[in-house]
Amino acid sequence: MNAADYADFGLLSPATAGTAASRLTSDSQFIQAMLDVELEWVRVLAGAGYVGAEVPAAVEAAASAGRYDAAGLAGRAQGGGNPLIPLLADLRAEIRQLPLPQTAAAAAAVHKGATSQDIVDSALFLMARRTVQVIGADLRAAAAALARLAEEHRGTVTVARTLTQHSLPSTFGLKAANWLAGVGQAGLRLEEAAASLPLQWGGAAGTMAALTGLAGRGGSPLGLAAQLAGRLGLAEPVAPWQTNRLPATALAAALADVLAAAGKVANDVLLLSRPEIGELSEPRAEGRGVSSAMPQKQNPVLSVLIRSAALAAPGHLAQVQAAAGGAVDERPDGSWHVEWQALRQLLRLAGGAAAKLAELAQGLSVHRDRMAANLALTGPLVVSERIMAEVAPLLDGEAPGAGKTRVQALVNESLSTGAPLADLLRAAVPAEALPDARLAELLDPAGYTGQSDELITRITSHFKEWSCP
Amino acid sequence: MNAADYADFGLLSPATAGTAASRLTSDSQFIQAMLDVELEWVRVLAGAGYVGAEVPAAVEAAASAGRYDAAGLAGRAQGGGNPLIPLLADLRAEIRQLPLPQTAAAAAAVHKGATSQDIVDSALFLMARRTVQVIGADLRAAAAALARLAEEHRGTVTVARTLTQHSLPSTFGLKAANWLAGVGQAGLRLEEAAASLPLQWGGAAGTMAALTGLAGRGGSPLGLAAQLAGRLGLAEPVAPWQTNRLPATALAAALADVLAAAGKVANDVLLLSRPEIGELSEPRAEGRGVSSAMPQKQNPVLSVLIRSAALAAPGHLAQVQAAAGGAVDERPDGSWHVEWQALRQLLRLAGGAAAKLAELAQGLSVHRDRMAANLALTGPLVVSERIMAEVAPLLDGEAPGAGKTRVQALVNESLSTGAPLADLLRAAVPAEALPDARLAELLDPAGYTGQSDELITRITSHFKEWSCP
Amino acid sequence: MNAADYADFGLLSPATAGTAASRLTSDSQFIQAMLDVELEWVRVLAGAGYVGAEVPAAVEAAASAGRYDAAGLAGRAQGGGNPLIPLLADLRAEIRQLPLPQTAAAAAAVHKGATSQDIVDSALFLMARRTVQVIGADLRAAAAALARLAEEHRGTVTVARTLTQHSLPSTFGLKAANWLAGVGQAGLRLEEAAASLPLQWGGAAGTMAALTGLAGRGGSPLGLAAQLAGRLGLAEPVAPWQTNRLPATALAAALADVLAAAGKVANDVLLLSRPEIGELSEPRAEGRGVSSAMPQKQNPVLSVLIRSAALAAPGHLAQVQAAAGGAVDERPDGSWHVEWQALRQLLRLAGGAAAKLAELAQGLSVHRDRMAANLALTGPLVVSERIMAEVAPLLDGEAPGAGKTRVQALVNESLSTGAPLADLLRAAVPAEALPDARLAELLDPAGYTGQSDELITRITSHFKEWSCP
Amino acid sequence: MNAADYADFGLLSPATAGTAASRLTSDSQFIQAMLDVELEWVRVLAGAGYVGAEVPAAVEAAASAGRYDAAGLAGRAQGGGNPLIPLLADLRAEIRQLPLPQTAAAAAAVHKGATSQDIVDSALFLMARRTVQVIGADLRAAAAALARLAEEHRGTVTVARTLTQHSLPSTFGLKAANWLAGVGQAGLRLEEAAASLPLQWGGAAGTMAALTGLAGRGGSPLGLAAQLAGRLGLAEPVAPWQTNRLPATALAAALADVLAAAGKVANDVLLLSRPEIGELSEPRAEGRGVSSAMPQKQNPVLSVLIRSAALAAPGHLAQVQAAAGGAVDERPDGSWHVEWQALRQLLRLAGGAAAKLAELAQGLSVHRDRMAANLALTGPLVVSERIMAEVAPLLDGEAPGAGKTRVQALVNESLSTGAPLADLLRAAVPAEALPDARLAELLDPAGYTGQSDELITRITSHFKEWSCP
Repeated sequence: MNAADYADFGLLSPATAGTAASRLTSDSQFIQAMLDVELEWVRVLAGAGYVGAEVPAAVEAAASAGRYDAAGLAGRAQGGGNPLIPLLADLRAEIRQLPLPQTAAAAAAVHKGATSQDIVDSALFLMARRTVQVIGADLRAAAAALARLAEEHRGTVTVARTLTQHSLPSTFGLKAANWLAGVGQAGLRLEEAAASLPLQWGGAAGTMAALTGLAGRGGSPLGLAAQLAGRLGLAEPVAPWQTNRLPATALAAALADVLAAAGKVANDVLLLSRPEIGELSEPRAEGRGVSSAMPQKQNPVLSVLIRSAALAAPGHLAQVQAAAGGAVDERPDGSWHVEWQALRQLLRLAGGAAAKLAELAQGLSVHRDRMAANLALTGPLVVSERIMAEVAPLLDGEAPGAGKTRVQALVNESLSTGAPLADLLRAAVPAEALPDARLAELLDPAGYTGQSDELITRITSHFKEWSCP
Repeated sequence: MNAADYADFGLLSPATAGTAASRLTSDSQFIQAMLDVELEWVRVLAGAGYVGAEVPAAVEAAASAGRYDAAGLAGRAQGGGNPLIPLLADLRAEIRQLPLPQTAAAAAAVHKGATSQDIVDSALFLMARRTVQVIGADLRAAAAALARLAEEHRGTVTVARTLTQHSLPSTFGLKAANWLAGVGQAGLRLEEAAASLPLQWGGAAGTMAALTGLAGRGGSPLGLAAQLAGRLGLAEPVAPWQTNRLPATALAAALADVLAAAGKVANDVLLLSRPEIGELSEPRAEGRGVSSAMPQKQNPVLSVLIRSAALAAPGHLAQVQAAAGGAVDERPDGSWHVEWQALRQLLRLAGGAAAKLAELAQGLSVHRDRMAANLALTGPLVVSERIMAEVAPLLDGEAPGAGKTRVQALVNESLSTGAPLADLLRAAVPAEALPDARLAELLDPAGYTGQSDELITRITSHFKEWSCP
Repeated sequence: MNAADYADFGLLSPATAGTAASRLTSDSQFIQAMLDVELEWVRVLAGAGYVGAEVPAAVEAAASAGRYDAAGLAGRAQGGGNPLIPLLADLRAEIRQLPLPQTAAAAAAVHKGATSQDIVDSALFLMARRTVQVIGADLRAAAAALARLAEEHRGTVTVARTLTQHSLPSTFGLKAANWLAGVGQAGLRLEEAAASLPLQWGGAAGTMAALTGLAGRGGSPLGLAAQLAGRLGLAEPVAPWQTNRLPATALAAALADVLAAAGKVANDVLLLSRPEIGELSEPRAEGRGVSSAMPQKQNPVLSVLIRSAALAAPGHLAQVQAAAGGAVDERPDGSWHVEWQALRQLLRLAGGAAAKLAELAQGLSVHRDRMAANLALTGPLVVSERIMAEVAPLLDGEAPGAGKTRVQALVNESLSTGAPLADLLRAAVPAEALPDARLAELLDPAGYTGQSDELITRITSHFKEWSCP
Repeated sequence: MNAADYADFGLLSPATAGTAASRLTSDSQFIQAMLDVELEWVRVLAGAGYVGAEVPAAVEAAASAGRYDAAGLAGRAQGGGNPLIPLLADLRAEIRQLPLPQTAAAAAAVHKGATSQDIVDSALFLMARRTVQVIGADLRAAAAALARLAEEHRGTVTVARTLTQHSLPSTFGLKAANWLAGVGQAGLRLEEAAASLPLQWGGAAGTMAALTGLAGRGGSPLGLAAQLAGRLGLAEPVAPWQTNRLPATALAAALADVLAAAGKVANDVLLLSRPEIGELSEPRAEGRGVSSAMPQKQNPVLSVLIRSAALAAPGHLAQVQAAAGGAVDERPDGSWHVEWQALRQLLRLAGGAAAKLAELAQGLSVHRDRMAANLALTGPLVVSERIMAEVAPLLDGEAPGAGKTRVQALVNESLSTGAPLADLLRAAVPAEALPDARLAELLDPAGYTGQSDELITRITSHFKEWSCP
């Protein structure tokens, strides 16, 4: 078999290809994670005197992913249904060939008391924890950049849009702060989920039977497992969780949330960088966003790819959730296996999106002039809510509510005839009830941004410590 | 329109029909939740002096779901795309017709400073919190029953199964404890998620502009929102989260986890109550599990329905996640709307599953004899792992590892010829190396259940406080 | 139990509430469909002489959904896990109480030789077929309106957008034709899928055993089933398909495709009716699109609701697909049950979307002036592809390809300095190589719409027969 | 960048790793497919005289995937968001360096009149068509083997199970035939879908503008596209379908159906090869199904992996469907990109499942003795339906229906006391009404398999031509 004939480098997944998260979740890295688990375990065993003191060195000498044929292992993993079985065989063979003493004993000692699932589950979470460090760093960087945008644009008045239409004035600072709120919330959840990822260590049937035999009376299998968890940086579980897959769903849900938060930002940037709106532009980079056919185009590729990653999240999450709900027995007959690729894809997608989001947030161009121009499109109608609240009562006369009907009529008239709402209002309300200056004030969008300032402060404060550690 | 022509009572969803969770999430209850939010809000406003002191009483008199035509409101909700708009119109009309003073003012005061999304989002979470109380109670009851099963069956040896085949001895107590671990973890997550459900209060564009106008200088819109959150039992958010839908994904993920944990139990019960296995039976109840055609059948209907509910979870979760990642602007153009029914269905499914799980756990019959008989099917081969660990080294001779090959050959011989493994081992290993008594001990499944006892204790202790408050 | 306490009228699903498809898939209609299957079956049996000739009349007298308590049946369906069991009991009771002769015999004859699954599966598809008639009619109406738009706007030049940016000139007619292509393809698929929906008729275990006993030697159970299929308008299956659920996935996929096609139109309308773009407006209707807070707003509610329906499709489709892949035995233990609600929701969503799409397509306003204005935003750059193809070779000089680099530089200069591309080109290319008139022609967007006209003709011709029967 | 650092060989997807389908969908093969499209296109252009006659030879010389760095292309695909852009650059560079005349002109001629999406979409479908050939062959092989099983086991009586419990007698032949029905239906659908996969050829905006310019007056861009479709073996589309993604959903749905049909078989095999049931065994193969810890185990790995593949289908299908419903403009901003990996995964999963299914069906061991033993577990109760139909009327006495109640009581008595049902019936019914021989006949399961034989014939006939071409 020619390895390259089967290789997937991400050619059909430009949102993830070539990113740190993809590298950290490659087959090679997963092999390394499995080797790391096996190695730390013989260290624990040696520390407890259950294997010879020379065993860890022998295993360490062989525990480097570069020594193994990833493509071959992938093909052979079909035999037993998981990649650890062929890797373990190769690892033992490799140990036996080392120019070291007692390699046969070391080869036999590897994996003692463990089962495939212990290694695969723990290695997956080890790989996840490593990848989340990178994802988390990118999210914090993105968050810091978004916080700067929020501060910088506290006073940049823009139009808020609901159901696609202009609703009220707001500020671009608040939009950036809301992006930060999503990214920050997702980042915190992800890091919390990653910190809770438990070791799997239950032996063939989740009873730790082999280990109990090995440790003998007075031994502490659970104590050994706790040591291993500590060495690997994984959480110590209450018990083995071989068919109790909520640790996997928690990780998947947290990664999907990162993609949702990043997706929201991308959706907004994609919209607001359309030529007709033009309020934002993506940072440019050599070779990015070019079209193969149209020389004038500058495509918002970062956002396109983030959005594509976000669109992929629900399907993968559904897989992990379906796997958890489909578990049976003490090791599931298929639903265990379907988790692996889905979790890896979620790590890659979240990693790709986070990296692109950081770059996007750090380099986003904000076009105040276009924000002002777009806001002006709706004119004073954009504050019609305020007019309704403050001017309508002046027109109530005898009948409470009559003013509302009157204002609605004026708004409709302005919409249909193009007559300025200011003029219509001026004509409708006596100046003594509403002086010119107050009317002008009421009609100024910049004066009707509500708690924008306070909300920006609340959000940026809330995530400050997290995003700028 | 004849309401019944459109009604869905759950006829096609027997996992949820007729349950408390379905009642608590009916259209009628959602109307009530929206009314409750509107009512508490005028109480807050009245407390702050922003509406007359008599307004709350008027609103209260009209704020009963029974006064409104749910089917009609559903149809009219198409107009504005959400159910609050027609309800608000009807609520105001209802208030105006009350035999109370100043109803016109009260009708005008309702909803002041709020927007549809404030009410719909907050009411959804209010409804969710109420429903989660019932779901949580059922999960705790199930957990308590599972803990009792775990204790009672600490010593009930049974076979553990991996990839459908017999692997090692275990105990039914540990299986029940593992069920408890899943249910407990999911229950804790759900209650934590429910306790974090935030109020939505942002006004038309998430800026609290109208409220800012109402409160005037020196007023505190955020303080008013905090009061409302307190009154409704919802969490106070950092900021409005109109297009930042992670609160919805958190709830959905927690509900899906409940369904996964319940689904795992159901899968096991469905398997273990098959006639050929016969280790468990569902509790019987009048009219349950009967077949329309076959008088001898007793179907495990509780588990069938729990499993069907679990199978529905991933799709609904994917919807909520897709909605979150599809948000745009300050109110999304469709992805907001798709959340509602998905969240409701998840509440119903989790509620139906939890109620059935409690009944199942409380009434499950455990057939020790069949567990013993099934374990005996594999005979001493079920402890071959132990033989491999403890007997193989006695057969190593000069070559480390040779014993393993020898034991594997004996296992194969036993499998193919039916010769008892005990005899083959006896013939292979000298009695001085392995006395008869020790060989018998090694071959006894009951002596090879590892940490089963300790794990049961760890799991039941971990969830004791939660399940028996 | 108070039925209204549990009723769902679609309050949380404004995309479907109050539509014909919702009515045709109500609990009441599903009861009717089950009754219809039972009735047609006794007619078949009576025709073959296997039940008395008076039986059909008795069953017919009782076979009206209005006689049964839908909410009560829903609750009782939990007992056996499906709604037919309690309905059958009630139907028999109802028959016995009829003021007709031999009702006891008729009550006993009902359902003879059938099993619950026969009735439930066949009734679901009967309900689906009825609902698809309405959905299909709406899709054809939408298609006819889209074809009219395509014809009317053959010459309406507009800008095509790729990855959110202006790419090339196109026509609005072609956009409408492309919408038609999607809707037409989905409509054809749906009607084909509906026409293939098979009867389910296998008896308790899919062997037709009871029916075989009933028909005796010389009888033809499969012939009876074929008669029933004919009476119900369902397809005759090769064999019972109790755990072979591809008929369900085919229906679900076809409904999801309708939602995808409708969703694409809605996405475009939502975008193009944004104030900054303004190329389209939804039809107005009394009370539609109003905001509870902002009097100036006109929300594109039809498209919002269509889009929300489209967003719900993948989750429901995934459920049906997961159910099919999870089937086991001769009747699945849960995956059968999860299909029902998912199929019903897909019928409702597709029905709601189709109805709204027809209204949208029939009343869409097209703003040619805004299309022209938006196209002008990019100016002659919008035909830069053409310039690249036709002008670049004139600038190649000695080096093939050099002209492309030169034109790209001119485009960049135009983009950065604002200098008109026409002027830059004029200065770069000698008039003898490119006369003024030809340059102007090359720069005219209306002259660069490619095969727009031909494609409109191809698409409208292709779907003409289907959409205008 | 070290390519291996990013490579995925399927280590975490043992259901697909190392299969023909995985090889046919590798990055390398996708590069080849893109090159094939570019090459056939210059052939079409040369045939029409639009490029020099020497161009195809130059392109052909460079159009071999082995010349390109897949990992590097994957990384660079981020720049423009798709893999064609960097490949085209490299292809042109490669052409220029060929030791051939006029390579500069050939390099310039490549891709003339096309856009990235034309190449990527068409190459995806070309790759799909190639892969479906292999999947189809495996499905036919599986179907032929299942047909043989059905024939061979026409008379092998076994118990049918519904909702996990014994229902009625059936035959294993019918079970195999039902598997065939599912696999055959899915195979036909897949091959039909593959045959309909259309070429994409629309140019930058779906208008074929560049091509129209190239062809000039009298030219036929659509005719050129039709030629290209013919050369590539793709269907000629009505029109470009850049944002009209139903061709992609059709392929995805067909692949998901293959996985559902295969999953059903796997679920049954997993169940029926459990030690307590033991009716089936998977074919053995060197190194397959072994456990890393338990020497006695023989895991049904083929079925485990097929089932894991089936569990992955709904999530990927949901992605493709969500992408279709999320399309906007003339090229979607992210939803296009998310299709690619999902389609590839579905091809791989269906391919892996089909290959394993063929092996499983061809080597499945059927244990008639265990089928008989399991059937005997329920004893004559398994024909209680028949007793109800044929004996109950004999016990009706005066009251129609009374016999049913009486038989149900006898069944219950047999179930609770263990008294043989035959004896109870003998005592209840006078011999003159029911002679001993007839009673024995009625109680024989082998006599109550209904239309099993006829259904086997119908199904095997229906798929005969397809499976044995």
